[in-house]
This record gives sequence, C-alpha cells and structure tokens, in this order.
Amino acid sequence: MIETPYLLFLGDAPDALAAKVAQGIKDWRPDNCVGQFRMDGCKADMKLPDMTLAEAKAAGAKTLVIGVANRGGLISKAWKQVLLQALEEGFDIASGLHNLLRNEPDLAAKAKELGRTLHDVRIPVVQYPIANGEPRTGKRVLAVGTDCSVGKMYTALALDRDMRKAGMKSTFRATGQTGILITGEGVPLDAVIADFMAGSIEWLTPDNDADHWDIIEGQGSLFHVSYSGVTLALIHGGQPDALILCHEPTREHMRGLPGYKLPTLEAVRDMALSLAQVANPACKVVGISINTQHMNDAEATAYLEEVEARLGLPAVDPYRHGAERLAEALAAL
Amino acid sequence: MIETPYLLFLGDAPDALAAKVAQGIKDWRPDNCVGQFRMDGCKADMKLPDMTLAEAKAAGAKTLVIGVANRGGLISKAWKQVLLQALEEGFDIASGLHNLLRNEPDLAAKAKELGRTLHDVRIPVVQYPIANGEPRTGKRVLAVGTDCSVGKMYTALALDRDMRKAGMKSTFRATGQTGILITGEGVPLDAVIADFMAGSIEWLTPDNDADHWDIIEGQGSLFHVSYSGVTLALIHGGQPDALILCHEPTREHMRGLPGYKLPTLEAVRDMALSLAQVANPACKVVGISINTQHMNDAEATAYLEEVEARLGLPAVDPYRHGAERLAEALAAL
Repeated sequence: MIETPYLLFLGDAPDALAAKVAQGIKDWRPDNCVGQFRMDGCKADMKLPDMTLAEAKAAGAKTLVIGVANRGGLISKAWKQVLLQALEEGFDIASGLHNLLRNEPDLAAKAKELGRTLHDVRIPVVQYPIANGEPRTGKRVLAVGTDCSVGKMYTALALDRDMRKAGMKSTFRATGQTGILITGEGVPLDAVIADFMAGSIEWLTPDNDADHWDIIEGQGSLFHVSYSGVTLALIHGGQPDALILCHEPTREHMRGLPGYKLPTLEAVRDMALSLAQVANPACKVVGISINTQHMNDAEATAYLEEVEARLGLPAVDPYRHGAERLAEALAAL
Repeated sequence: MIETPYLLFLGDAPDALAAKVAQGIKDWRPDNCVGQFRMDGCKADMKLPDMTLAEAKAAGAKTLVIGVANRGGLISKAWKQVLLQALEEGFDIASGLHNLLRNEPDLAAKAKELGRTLHDVRIPVVQYPIANGEPRTGKRVLAVGTDCSVGKMYTALALDRDMRKAGMKSTFRATGQTGILITGEGVPLDAVIADFMAGSIEWLTPDNDADHWDIIEGQGSLFHVSYSGVTLALIHGGQPDALILCHEPTREHMRGLPGYKLPTLEAVRDMALSLAQVANPACKVVGISINTQHMNDAEATAYLEEVEARLGLPAVDPYRHGAERLAEALAAL
C-alpha cells in the first residue's frame, strides 16, 4: 500500500505521452495529488501546482510518484539527485519503471538509512496463494478485450466512477503498474509466478458485501498469444459475475503480432464466457466498451449503434459518453 | 543442461511412491542411470546396481540426482552428509525439491569452492523472451487434460518412445520438474514469470526439420481454475499442430478442487482446439489417452471402445497398450 497523497514527478518528460502514468493518476485520483515536480525541459503538464520538494512536503505529500517513462531504461544523474533529495525530505518513492529503484545502490542505501520505502510496483511484494476456486461473497466484473491496450483499464476506472456516482458500492482492483500507482495498491499480475497468477486475483478480490462490486482491471486478451495465459488467470481467479467486452475497431492486427488479425467481439464473448462459467456458472456478458478515439463523432455513434444492435448489449465509449449504461447493466443483474 | 549419466539418490525413501522421480528417470531414460545410492532404511528400489559415490564416479556418473521427495521440506543432516561428499567426489547435484539446494549455505559454499553445479530445476535459469507468435518449422504435439495429473507426462514420454521406434523424428520437451530431471533439460513452466510463459515454450520448441515432432509435456488443464493460465500459455506458445486429450475416468472432482466436476472430453476438445487454432489454424485433435489404472482389463477395454466410438478418434491407454496408435495418427497428419 503506497501512502497518499502524492507529489507527481514528471522529470524531463519529452512530451505529454511520456507522462501518461502521471496523467492517469491526475485524471482518476485528483484528490491523491498535491502537485507536480518538473525539471528543466519538461514538456508535460498535469495542470497541478508546480512545487519544490519542500513545498509539497509542507502541503502534506507522503510519496513522490515517478509519473514519467525514462529514456533508454536508465535513471539519469539529474533524476537521481531529485530522488535522493526526496528521500532526505521525508518522501517515500513509488515507481513502475522496468529498472527498479531498489537496484540503484545509492537510493537503496539512502532509503535504508532514513527508513523510507521504495515501492517498485512492477514487482510483487506479497507471497500469493495457489487459487482454491472457492466461491466468494460480493460481486465482480472483469473487462476482457479483443486485444491488449484497447482501453480495459480506462473502462474499469470509468465504471468505478459512474457506479459510485449512482450510489453503488464498488472498488477498482488494479492488476497493472499504472493502475497500482493510481490507486496505491493492487497486483502486478504480469510479474507474478505462473502457479500463483489465479491465486493472486483471488487474494485481490476477497469476500465482500453482497451488493459490493469489485471492478477488476483486465490484462492481455485470450486471443493474444503472448499474454493469453495471464488473461485466463484473471477470468478463473476473478470468478466474475459479469464480463464487459473491450474493443478498438480501427486496429489492423493484434498489438505486436503483425500476423494475427483481431478476433470478432462475438468470438471473444463466446470464448470468455465459456471459460468464465467454469469458475462461475452464473457469469454473463453485460456490455461492450468501444475505444472510438480514432473515429469522428458520426463514425463513433454509427459504430456503437451497429455493435449494440448486432450483439444485443449496451455498447458505449466510456471516454466519450461515460460508463453509466454499463453501470446500469450491472445494477440490473 | 544437466550432465549425464546420473547416480540416482534414493535417500531414506519411506516407500516406493516417495521415489517416483527416480522411477520416472529409470523407466524412461535407463541409459542415463549408472546406479542408485540408498541410505539405511530406504524402502525404494529401482533395480539398479547399488553404488557408493566412488563406485558411481568410477562408472562414469556425472550428476547425483535427488530422485526422492524429502519429508517436511527439510534437507536432513543425513542427506546433507551425502550431498557434501558427492560434491567432494566430483559430482554435480540436480534436484526438483521445493527447498532449493542453492539456499543451503554449506552446499552452496562447497559447490562454489569446487566448481560444481547445483541444478535446482524448480527455478528457471534462462531469461525467456516474450512470445512473438511467429510460425516455426517442424511439427509439435501437445497433451491437454481434463484435469491435472491425469497422465500427460506419461503420454508424452510413451509417444516419444513409440514414434522413435517407428522411425519418426521426435523430441520430448519437458515443462515440469520430473520431466526436466528425466531428460536433463526443459522449462519449469510453473515457476516462470507470467509475461514470459508463452515465450518460454516458443524457446523450448524452436525451428526444426519439417518432419520432426516436438512432443510437449502438458501442464494443468484449461478447466482447472488454479492453473488454467499455464495451460493456455502452453497452447499458444507451443503452436501445436496436434492435440492429444488426456483423461482419468474414475476421478470424482478436479484435483484439489472438491467443488469442481471434471469436464467432458468433448468440452476439452472444443475449448482447446478453438484456442489452439488462434496460434495455428491447422491444429487438429488426433487422439485420446486414457489413464485406466483404476479399471480392470475388461473395464478398460470397454471404456476405450466407448470413447473411441463416441469421439471418432483413436483412444488408448499408453501404459497398458502402448502409444503406437497415437504415433500412427500423428504420422498420418
């Protein structure tokens, strides 16, 4: 569990895209952010107050979160100075970078000396159990995609927001690095040892109130051969009561796999549902989330109408139109 | 790669079952075994020559293989004496135990001092790639089961034996600890990090002669919620041209999951084939392997005939009747 609130470290981000982790935190948990820390040449801006480390500390920030990707996988000297100073000023540091904070000897030594915590969210810190498959109280919904990076995390976060707005009980359950930094906790599923994948998701979504929904962040796709095993562990460990299908209609092939076409929404519906019903025979597909970012308004509306008619399920782009109709579909279950 | 031939360490095995790893090596790779090492009270016997460490060394043994499970997860003092002495005598040591040789300070120090290798086959030693999904030359067959521990490894090893007998080119590809100790190499898939599971199987079954078959050891089951993600990584990383369905008909529920019934062979056929065709559209289900150990001869024969008629595929118990008909089905593909 990462202590909030955060100071968002944007470093020397060369563009807005490099700071997309910070953007996610700002968009979804603005109350977790007291300000941003930018270095010379930073081209990203979260529209948060620019603060020095001391100012952020005085404003109550507990953790410096690295919200920017580093170039070439190295933690530069300029970054290092800031990070060491942050430890001195009393911050913990949280990072989802591939190269770990703990593997930087000077950071590790300084954190140990001062009793600060370095959160490398890319690496599990829990000894997860092997899944036991037993039913749990409360309800769960999982986003499953035709491909990787089609908007599953965004869909889950929007659903969480709109369910709460509607007075429903819900918790977003992060399964990836960005999601973990946004909420301060979760399971970095892609880094879990094979035998414990499904168990880690059971651990993440324990017994809860009968009317509480865990909204589980999806990963990969059953049809993406590099990561499909991770997706199936989510389906069987999560025991979802409901599935939401996620799709990006303009993609020409599976992400990173030029030889593989995307499956149809129907194929994902049938395959995911058959597999989900092994763990939860009552599971249903309740809605469809379409990422229409590469379509104009007319195209997006026409596409959503076509999909909705074809599959007989509410189809929305939660970024363009909100996730209320998906929340209603869950409430009606 | 573990150096052969082996001296099989049976320790103080309380019964034959405790030494089933040694039995597997003896049964499937007798040429890899120069003898057995038994301690006082050992109740297991591989019918190999009993040898001292010095005798085995003189007979050419390179590696002492721990072929017995230890009680309570501890490496006892009595075992430790033998293992230290083996390092002194020039042996490497190989083990599939949960508690690792490398975590025993005295063994680790002695091995380092003498330049010997401690093979903990439970832990990957390779940095596997992320799967790229590209087609590879050569052919592959994978055993998929209705459940865990229904005879997938046995089926694969029997198939390898009978394909070679029939003059076909084949290689058994181990994906579990026992299989790795039997062949001296493989991927300990249940210990691989989630993101690299499918890639590790691509790595294990690379390009080969067009008429060569990799026989991939199966793990888990698509219908076993604790391990299904591992099974799907095998299906998508292995890109099998052929699947063999494995089943044990007398089991009343999924192994370790009292609330879960076994799926039908038809359900496994349909689900596994649909998923396999994502990576290899030409994949076919070619035969069925039934573990009839809890049936008498008449029951076994009747069951196999019924399954064969019902599914329209050759159905055999490779332990009772050999795997020749499965090898023929592959040859006919």
